[in-house]
Amino acid sequence: MLDYSQGKGEFKNWIISEVDFSSNALGKCEAIMSLGNGYMGLRSVTEEPYIHETRNLFVSGTFNKAAENEVTELPNLADVTRLDIRIDGERFSLELGQTNNYVRQLNLKTAELIRSFEWTSPKGKELRFLFSRFVSLDNLHLIGMKMEIESLTDPVEISIDTGINAQMSNSGCQHFLEGERRIYNNEFIQLIQTTTESNIDVVLNTTHKMKVNGKEASNDSEMHMARRKVWQTYQFNLKPNDKLEMEKLTTVHTSRDKEIPQEGYDLQKLRDDSLRALQSHVEKGYDTLFQRHKDAWQRKIWDKYNFELVSDNDFDELALRFSLYHLTVMTPAHDERMGIGAKALSGEGYKGHSFWDTEIFILPFFIFSNPEVAKSLLMYRYHGLEGARRKALENGYEGAMYPWEMAWPTDGEVTPEFGDIDIVTGEQTKIWTGFIEQHITSDIAFGVYQYENVTGDKQFMDEYGYEIVFDTAKFWASRLEWNEEKHRYEINNVIGPDEYKEHIHNNAFTNYMAYFNMKLAMRYYDQLKKENPLLLQSLGRKLDLDEMYSLWEKKAKRLYLPNPREEDSVIPQDDTYLQLKQIDLTKYKEQDTVRTIYRDYNPEQINEIQVTKQADTLILFYLLEQTFLADDERISEAVKRANFHYYEPRTLHDSSLSLVTYAIVANDIGEEALAYRLFEKSCETDLGPMMHTSDEGIHAASIGGIWKTAIFGFAGIRLVNGKLTIQPRLPKHWKEIKFTIHWQGQPINFCITPTTLTVEAVYKEKFVFESYGKTYECGDFIEVDLSEDVIKNS
Amino acid sequence: MLDYSQGKGEFKNWIISEVDFSSNALGKCEAIMSLGNGYMGLRSVTEEPYIHETRNLFVSGTFNKAAENEVTELPNLADVTRLDIRIDGERFSLELGQTNNYVRQLNLKTAELIRSFEWTSPKGKELRFLFSRFVSLDNLHLIGMKMEIESLTDPVEISIDTGINAQMSNSGCQHFLEGERRIYNNEFIQLIQTTTESNIDVVLNTTHKMKVNGKEASNDSEMHMARRKVWQTYQFNLKPNDKLEMEKLTTVHTSRDKEIPQEGYDLQKLRDDSLRALQSHVEKGYDTLFQRHKDAWQRKIWDKYNFELVSDNDFDELALRFSLYHLTVMTPAHDERMGIGAKALSGEGYKGHSFWDTEIFILPFFIFSNPEVAKSLLMYRYHGLEGARRKALENGYEGAMYPWEMAWPTDGEVTPEFGDIDIVTGEQTKIWTGFIEQHITSDIAFGVYQYENVTGDKQFMDEYGYEIVFDTAKFWASRLEWNEEKHRYEINNVIGPDEYKEHIHNNAFTNYMAYFNMKLAMRYYDQLKKENPLLLQSLGRKLDLDEMYSLWEKKAKRLYLPNPREEDSVIPQDDTYLQLKQIDLTKYKEQDTVRTIYRDYNPEQINEIQVTKQADTLILFYLLEQTFLADDERISEAVKRANFHYYEPRTLHDSSLSLVTYAIVANDIGEEALAYRLFEKSCETDLGPMMHTSDEGIHAASIGGIWKTAIFGFAGIRLVNGKLTIQPRLPKHWKEIKFTIHWQGQPINFCITPTTLTVEAVYKEKFVFESYGKTYECGDFIEVDLSEDVIKNS
Repeated sequence: MLDYSQGKGEFKNWIISEVDFSSNALGKCEAIMSLGNGYMGLRSVTEEPYIHETRNLFVSGTFNKAAENEVTELPNLADVTRLDIRIDGERFSLELGQTNNYVRQLNLKTAELIRSFEWTSPKGKELRFLFSRFVSLDNLHLIGMKMEIESLTDPVEISIDTGINAQMSNSGCQHFLEGERRIYNNEFIQLIQTTTESNIDVVLNTTHKMKVNGKEASNDSEMHMARRKVWQTYQFNLKPNDKLEMEKLTTVHTSRDKEIPQEGYDLQKLRDDSLRALQSHVEKGYDTLFQRHKDAWQRKIWDKYNFELVSDNDFDELALRFSLYHLTVMTPAHDERMGIGAKALSGEGYKGHSFWDTEIFILPFFIFSNPEVAKSLLMYRYHGLEGARRKALENGYEGAMYPWEMAWPTDGEVTPEFGDIDIVTGEQTKIWTGFIEQHITSDIAFGVYQYENVTGDKQFMDEYGYEIVFDTAKFWASRLEWNEEKHRYEINNVIGPDEYKEHIHNNAFTNYMAYFNMKLAMRYYDQLKKENPLLLQSLGRKLDLDEMYSLWEKKAKRLYLPNPREEDSVIPQDDTYLQLKQIDLTKYKEQDTVRTIYRDYNPEQINEIQVTKQADTLILFYLLEQTFLADDERISEAVKRANFHYYEPRTLHDSSLSLVTYAIVANDIGEEALAYRLFEKSCETDLGPMMHTSDEGIHAASIGGIWKTAIFGFAGIRLVNGKLTIQPRLPKHWKEIKFTIHWQGQPINFCITPTTLTVEAVYKEKFVFESYGKTYECGDFIEVDLSEDVIKNS
Repeated sequence: MLDYSQGKGEFKNWIISEVDFSSNALGKCEAIMSLGNGYMGLRSVTEEPYIHETRNLFVSGTFNKAAENEVTELPNLADVTRLDIRIDGERFSLELGQTNNYVRQLNLKTAELIRSFEWTSPKGKELRFLFSRFVSLDNLHLIGMKMEIESLTDPVEISIDTGINAQMSNSGCQHFLEGERRIYNNEFIQLIQTTTESNIDVVLNTTHKMKVNGKEASNDSEMHMARRKVWQTYQFNLKPNDKLEMEKLTTVHTSRDKEIPQEGYDLQKLRDDSLRALQSHVEKGYDTLFQRHKDAWQRKIWDKYNFELVSDNDFDELALRFSLYHLTVMTPAHDERMGIGAKALSGEGYKGHSFWDTEIFILPFFIFSNPEVAKSLLMYRYHGLEGARRKALENGYEGAMYPWEMAWPTDGEVTPEFGDIDIVTGEQTKIWTGFIEQHITSDIAFGVYQYENVTGDKQFMDEYGYEIVFDTAKFWASRLEWNEEKHRYEINNVIGPDEYKEHIHNNAFTNYMAYFNMKLAMRYYDQLKKENPLLLQSLGRKLDLDEMYSLWEKKAKRLYLPNPREEDSVIPQDDTYLQLKQIDLTKYKEQDTVRTIYRDYNPEQINEIQVTKQADTLILFYLLEQTFLADDERISEAVKRANFHYYEPRTLHDSSLSLVTYAIVANDIGEEALAYRLFEKSCETDLGPMMHTSDEGIHAASIGGIWKTAIFGFAGIRLVNGKLTIQPRLPKHWKEIKFTIHWQGQPINFCITPTTLTVEAVYKEKFVFESYGKTYECGDFIEVDLSEDVIKNS
């Protein structure tokens, strides 16, 4: 059972707790309590093994394609967390004996996992256990673990098998060649593994320090090796009230690390260096290393984001901290060659691939809160241009057609071709997204646009941003299809955000976003022509942009942009959606688990029903209004409302990307209570009572969405036509929200209550923002009385 | 806890039982109760999963080399045995709740595994379970499983996940590419997997039949697929006293099957055919299929071997039946391209490779009991000539140098290069056997010689046997090294049977057996010259035997054959052994687990101590006396005795090949009580109380050795100088032993009591045997009074 109220005092709303051990909650706790630092992610699996556990350690960017018929994915590294503990020769397990005062906690503030309990063995001996663990934010290569076992009543013999185990796989797919194993001086264990195709060496070192009653125990462990495994067996005889302490420190390095030279890489040097690094950690010990890690979290994360929330519902603040925690843990901020996986680094789901989830659900957080990281994420896409251009070529198009799923930047498209069972044919369903879910390309252009507007980072634009926008717009110009009969351009045979509709024509979202992408290119082209014609010239040569401008102009003008229907203001999601048959969806909407409709219908059948997987037309509204489109291209609140009420009942929210968008739009149209309900529900995607929804990893986009809903939704921060606007609409429960965002390179502190808005420009540089139609200039500190001045006008 | 006394009446001494569930005995029971039919081997892992289980299914001959730095091995196929059973939503496990009347039994006679118990769930509901399983000897591709669950007290909801899971690996090494998965008609599950390098397709089909209270339950299971997995979820609500029955039938086929055409192989056809085969099995159902399997065991095995033993110690008969059971289960009698693995098909140990274990410890059983199978095993070696010749060439020799470890016949040497940890350096130890344990080549020649003598199969000799013997003798001629100083040929830098001595010179066993091999070639050469000069001519051309005869003659004559020392009649195991330092070995001899000396010494240090892993000089005595060597080359009983008493105290029996040899030699030298003790101890290699010695698989050679000790040792059947001799020396406990052996194509029934020997020639064809120096001719039935006539003379 999960409990979010265990944090007291300093740690109020900082603690995720499991308060009863249940083998049914293994996957859930492993994922939502997972540790990491962007370099690596470690599922919070228990030390002692259980059936149905998933023991994962991933290092960002170490992609490998195991075979011709597999797609590249993040491989599951060797494990160091498992401890095989025997008490008087019997396997220690919480499923055996009796457990009291059990608690497993992730402290979001200190990013430490602890687990403690008293346990009575089947033979009646009482012991107290305490485990703690962190993945250092101070040193990205370091994993710290600690264990204490106290014998409370009886003499007891304890033995522990501990080491490095490279028998791990990705659900049976083995990405590593067996490498050398070694124990130096019966003290430092080293294991090498090498990916089978990408040829990445992984070097793990681990070492143990044992104490009994605070006194270092002599190391007479037995050394063992088996296939892909190397370990030591420690054995201790404890008297009553004796306490055994074990520290296990591990370093993880790979030949893909940024520091590794491209030329002259030397495995032996990496082995030596990493071993030396571990040796220097050992001198400090767990407590000192943990203190540094904790300080790094305070300094780099909590002080920087400066987030506070006072809500009737304590869970809200915890959920937002959970969001900030995982946004940190999941993001390879240290290396611009790496992106964010859809399940972060917390599970095998989606294979570590990056989707539009990044640009639409996660990047906005970084653009506003940590622009350096946002830039790194966009650089990942810049490095991905090579693969995107190849994909365009292979599909007969021009420019850059981004992969639906992206792994190592140059890999290009890596979407798997087959998925779950088709309940009609009994075969695997074909996955079409890699071929025809094409809006990702304009989503990335949108990310660049938003970054440019919020940060004003001209250098990035000159060197990378314009190139992305021009080349994606070039793709769209080549992608559009001319309909002679209707005398318009169309985009046929696609999948929109709603993946329950395959091979559809003129998906509103796709068409509008392609339109935006071309318009954006034209806008930048115009700007550059004026401001930097030399750069434009050189980009024009590089990207072959001759006559491209007039092509964009011509095609954008005649691109079919579906309008709201006259009778009900509903914008058709695609050419046929509104004509499809309607069925009673209650059964699927009420179910707590997702995609239950697949149990009754196969994809072809679902294609013929008015049922939507996730926000599609609705998310378009949210994005469009942040662009520079002309007033007559904007969507009125009435249309938003009509579409919300049409599509929501038909939407199963079978993707974790759905609820947050509906929450924001609900708030926009004044459905405040509903917005709050949807927000709470989106927080439950990972934190809710369903015990298996996070088994394959946490939901990265949803976690980004929690922050989005709070800041862009309730706090009402929004980029509109290049300007910063602030129109808070706090939920009734919320009394105060504080946070820092970055605008044009300047951190700005916000504090919002139901009646006041306080804005503080940290560097005291002047900037302008709009709130409820009024323009404010702020160069220091400003307080807006929302109750008197603004809310009435809204 | 294991119990061998549960078989009553018809099944007395036929039942291996585990009478208390213990997670500590998982590996033991999985291995010693493993099922199989030579085509495939299935470890007897429980349906519900446990930590530390090893779920293995192997098909003979499907070798694969997963990577450049891996050796070829038998891959662990997809699993069909695991059932994930939930009772009222909670995982069923015998580690939870309360279990009564537990028993798991392998019935050696019917080759069926059953498991039954009553179980009270943690919530207090009582249920009765019965599982049964067989791997058909009637249809080599068929696995039958059955489960019954009865709700004894309460209404209960049962759900079962069951299907095919290809996430299995060999300790983390994945040999299979993910293949297609399919469920036909929500009824037949099919999964394809293909080995990564040898490109062997495996097709598994499985299907379920569900009944509640004898009435077929409608199939509304849910279908699922995940990576490398496909399964159905069945759900039932049982009322008190309702009984759920499930039959699960599985077929296993591979593209390496003998029936598959070399040309024009078609996976789709294999899929269709195998599915049709399963469909026809389904019509018959478990009970009928099991009956056929049971009948096949009776007809092909028990009737044929006709074995009975009356002993004070019931365990002896059970152990011998255990031996006959596993000798059947482990042997790919259906396909001469396949050999017997050192751990049979019951575990990953030794990777399915064939060692000298086959020729010296297992082949004799088949030569005397089932010559057809013996021929198939020798054909495996004949097909291995290609690899053996390559190995000779690569090592700068001529002829055929057999691999120490052999997998697919043409693979050549497949011994791994690295093993366990070196406790001094912390590195993996180098394995030298593949380079320098060379006696395997003459061991195989010995197998041919024995087969030829016992069966008189001239056709085999003409087509295959002579070629093996000539080419192995040719190897030895090229291998010998001339010592100019001592004016003799030597064999330096080898490992003998005692693998605790590496890089030694003139290992007595190796030298004598090389001598035998060359002498045997000369003998066959002489025979052929007289009887079949044309064949000799053609073999001479093929093998380039010009002047080889004189070379053999010259080299054999001057080959150094170590003689007994004058002072104590001890034959030096090698040039230096007798000069090495002696240490107190008590600690290691007394330990129940093997190879504990490695915990204190590394291989280099062990090399310098008078300590022997396993029978070395002793096994030479046993083999030599079965050859045709001249009287002055034979070993006297006094020398045997001296060497027995010298080497036994220095031998740790750290190989399962050791005890049986010592048992036979002990019996030969009249140490009857000791012989029996060693025999009992050798039976305990797998059947004894040590719970982890069989974890990696049963000990195939030891199991062959159990039979050897009984028949060649106690019953005294022996091939001596081409003649059949019978000199029984039964242990005091034994009252009567009956068995059938084959001599010159004729089955002969033996019945031996302490005082009588009864011999019956089944085909009534005359044959001659010797007993205690007297020659008997038998063409029908003969009874020898051992008490009066013979024993006195002995």
